[in-house]
Amino acid sequence: MSRAIGIRPQPDQVADELAIRSLAYAFCDAANRRDTVEFELVWDENGIWEIGAPLHSVATGATEITAHLLELLKPFEFFVQQVHSGVVAIHGNSATARWWVQETARALGGQPYDNHAIYEDELVKRDGTWRFTRRSYRYVWLDLKSPIGGQAVK
Amino acid sequence: MSRAIGIRPQPDQVADELAIRSLAYAFCDAANRRDTVEFELVWDENGIWEIGAPLHSVATGATEITAHLLELLKPFEFFVQQVHSGVVAIHGNSATARWWVQETARALGGQPYDNHAIYEDELVKRDGTWRFTRRSYRYVWLDLKSPIGGQAVK
Amino acid sequence: MSRAIGIRPQPDQVADELAIRSLAYAFCDAANRRDTVEFELVWDENGIWEIGAPLHSVATGATEITAHLLELLKPFEFFVQQVHSGVVAIHGNSATARWWVQETARALGGQPYDNHAIYEDELVKRDGTWRFTRRSYRYVWLDLKSPIGGQAVK
Repeated sequence: MSRAIGIRPQPDQVADELAIRSLAYAFCDAANRRDTVEFELVWDENGIWEIGAPLHSVATGATEITAHLLELLKPFEFFVQQVHSGVVAIHGNSATARWWVQETARALGGQPYDNHAIYEDELVKRDGTWRFTRRSYRYVWLDLKSPIGGQAVK
Repeated sequence: MSRAIGIRPQPDQVADELAIRSLAYAFCDAANRRDTVEFELVWDENGIWEIGAPLHSVATGATEITAHLLELLKPFEFFVQQVHSGVVAIHGNSATARWWVQETARALGGQPYDNHAIYEDELVKRDGTWRFTRRSYRYVWLDLKSPIGGQAVK
Repeated sequence: MSRAIGIRPQPDQVADELAIRSLAYAFCDAANRRDTVEFELVWDENGIWEIGAPLHSVATGATEITAHLLELLKPFEFFVQQVHSGVVAIHGNSATARWWVQETARALGGQPYDNHAIYEDELVKRDGTWRFTRRSYRYVWLDLKSPIGGQAVK
């Protein structure tokens, strides 16, 4: 996506880029709060959610993906995804994006989960609404051993 | 705020959303630098700043809130707030927002402060300028015990 | 930049602000992936990249800066820069920005590198494209001793 770097977007591109950025933030916000209604809304009906090695899994379709989210989060006393810098490239009604993400969590038994990763995304716009058609989570660094202290606050 | 997820905003909504996102970033930037002039500017005159359990406190009005910030930061050798993904919902001249935030700090005596939290916000636009009427900080995870190493750099 | 806080931007300012924010994200994304082609594109031809005490260095010009990036990243098994809240002030075809950043890395020999810092930026727009004319990285907190666990994932 190198040609877009630094180039001032056109007004209609601005609205699309902001919608796409907000969608990645809505994914994070819904996942962290385990809000299944809002989480399902970020996905295209036939979307694909892939988590990479060494914790590989794939789920397909908004309904199955949302069930998979709950299953993945079930062991955790707390789970926080942090979304950092993202780059977005828009081509008409489709787009790609890439995000730098950190996830920190602790299972009820104390098992730690901490990682840096990249989300590689594909999106589509239908009737003025952007959805994810594919999200691929690729771990860059993963720590399942170093203890995480502190207390979950309810 | 589920109905807005993924929907491409109108041009005037784009400007409002960007102003609101920038306001949350300006809060963070001013707090981290202990810049009281800029910090006071993010607040509506009658704004309310609430920090939740187990470190509950409330301050009301831009002036009192700014004094409270300095009091809260006084013990810290360094303090860094990191703002991550936010979701924003705009309704005319008022808005709500929710942010995922991490704060990391160490008191002069070595006491650590590390946490993940949510900022729940209410905002108002007067004369084309957005301000916070309410920010509620809710801890999700809090660690006041695990030592934080490293050196503050002046 | 206090006068801009909370003020709803004009449509043309919206496009400029989004381009500048995306440029800081593109810097991060390219650096983390060691993508020299994209990294060089974020810099003005005569740009200056300064890293502050206690790890001071300066590089000048997009080509030299890109070579310097590779040199700096060479020792690291993994390196992740995280970009958080940024404030942007635009004045016609020039702009300034300030970002809160964390960098976490581990050298192949196990040497840790973890820090919070500020990027102070100057930018220029030429032919509709924003580039950095200066980036100054100022450490706020630096930890070169506390071990970083976990595994890099290839």
